[in-house]
Amino acid sequence: MRFHVLTLFPEMIMESLNTSILGRAMEKDIIQAQALNIRDFANNKHHSVDDYTYGGGAGMLMQAQPVYDCVQHVVEQIPADAKTRVIYVTPQGRVFDQALAKELSGADDLIFLCGHYEGIDERVLEEVVTDEISIGDYVLTGGELPALVMIDAIARLVPGVLSNDESAQTDSFQNGLLEYPQYSRPAVWHDKEVPAILLSGDHAAVDRWRLEQSIERTKQRRPDLYEAWLKKQNGS
Amino acid sequence: MRFHVLTLFPEMIMESLNTSILGRAMEKDIIQAQALNIRDFANNKHHSVDDYTYGGGAGMLMQAQPVYDCVQHVVEQIPADAKTRVIYVTPQGRVFDQALAKELSGADDLIFLCGHYEGIDERVLEEVVTDEISIGDYVLTGGELPALVMIDAIARLVPGVLSNDESAQTDSFQNGLLEYPQYSRPAVWHDKEVPAILLSGDHAAVDRWRLEQSIERTKQRRPDLYEAWLKKQNGS
Repeated sequence: MRFHVLTLFPEMIMESLNTSILGRAMEKDIIQAQALNIRDFANNKHHSVDDYTYGGGAGMLMQAQPVYDCVQHVVEQIPADAKTRVIYVTPQGRVFDQALAKELSGADDLIFLCGHYEGIDERVLEEVVTDEISIGDYVLTGGELPALVMIDAIARLVPGVLSNDESAQTDSFQNGLLEYPQYSRPAVWHDKEVPAILLSGDHAAVDRWRLEQSIERTKQRRPDLYEAWLKKQNGS
Repeated sequence: MRFHVLTLFPEMIMESLNTSILGRAMEKDIIQAQALNIRDFANNKHHSVDDYTYGGGAGMLMQAQPVYDCVQHVVEQIPADAKTRVIYVTPQGRVFDQALAKELSGADDLIFLCGHYEGIDERVLEEVVTDEISIGDYVLTGGELPALVMIDAIARLVPGVLSNDESAQTDSFQNGLLEYPQYSRPAVWHDKEVPAILLSGDHAAVDRWRLEQSIERTKQRRPDLYEAWLKKQNGS
């Protein structure tokens, strides 16, 4: 699986990927990643990639030409039969979630286009982008962190990327519920005891307790997820 | 405003902050940030911070003691009258959004606790954490990227952090709507013209067009936000 990140800050992307858990998977060639500087594709001598917004307003906009040429450059490197998606990272997009992470983990090549300033000229987005995706309802200074977040969520689902210690077996959202509380040694800490059932050795009872805790926690903290889970239970 | 990040990967945090737009604000001392290595607070000779989970299951859990001591160390550095929040970054938390970013931008000190492996012993979370926050319904390899995302969203709302070019005036979510499409030079690119109204010089007409586009885009892409916006319009 190959990740291509188009950005004004390629070093930030590569440093972050190399120092993360994904760095190990990149060394083993389980996943590959490259970051391209959109500025290298500006066809003016100042390597300028942004200009004022038509109609006025504060802030600069990234222009169509360098973005288009950078995407074309990457697309030419990708085998014609590869499953490829071109993702624009934007608060205006479809909201990223675990189901979308799983879907995207089936692709061969993912191209992430990171905007900066006020965004990117709409015309190039219409021409090259297959998916506009948002990681949540908040505004950031650029698309780099959201691209890294998506790459992290997607890559960890690729077989071989995580070791057993980092196992994805019992994660939140897998069954539509939040994860149950967890405890490690010592059995008593600051006068707080680990729930006795977890020390009982009765695996079936432990599983029941954990499911109850997951349901209760989801109900309290995320009524929206709880309602969706209930519906699924009643439907099946 | 001071950010304190408690993590097993302090270098990743500081490198990312220093190379981002926030790095400039840190140089000017508008915001301050430090990253502390939780491993430095392990009171065993191997500096081990994780152990198996009571009740079984794959994956290791971060233990209470080093996390507690690391938080205490930071709290002791903070003036007693400072407005402080201790945030645990977890998919089980309240979902981060622009309103929460604004609320947190009013704090003096924000302590971010980043878990790794399967999570952190529940008892220490109960004892030290004021807010459990999630950046979205997906699972990541650690809490570092979500902490960086929240710091970015919060810090850019602090006066003086953004320059005019990166202005936060017309952002998505500010009025509950997604942002309208934007265009920059040239006026014609790949046979696509910039909407004529944006070249008209009629500022009132431009504002009307942009609002219409925002409403239409929100209705199409995010019916949930559109419904909330409609309700607010009818209520006022």
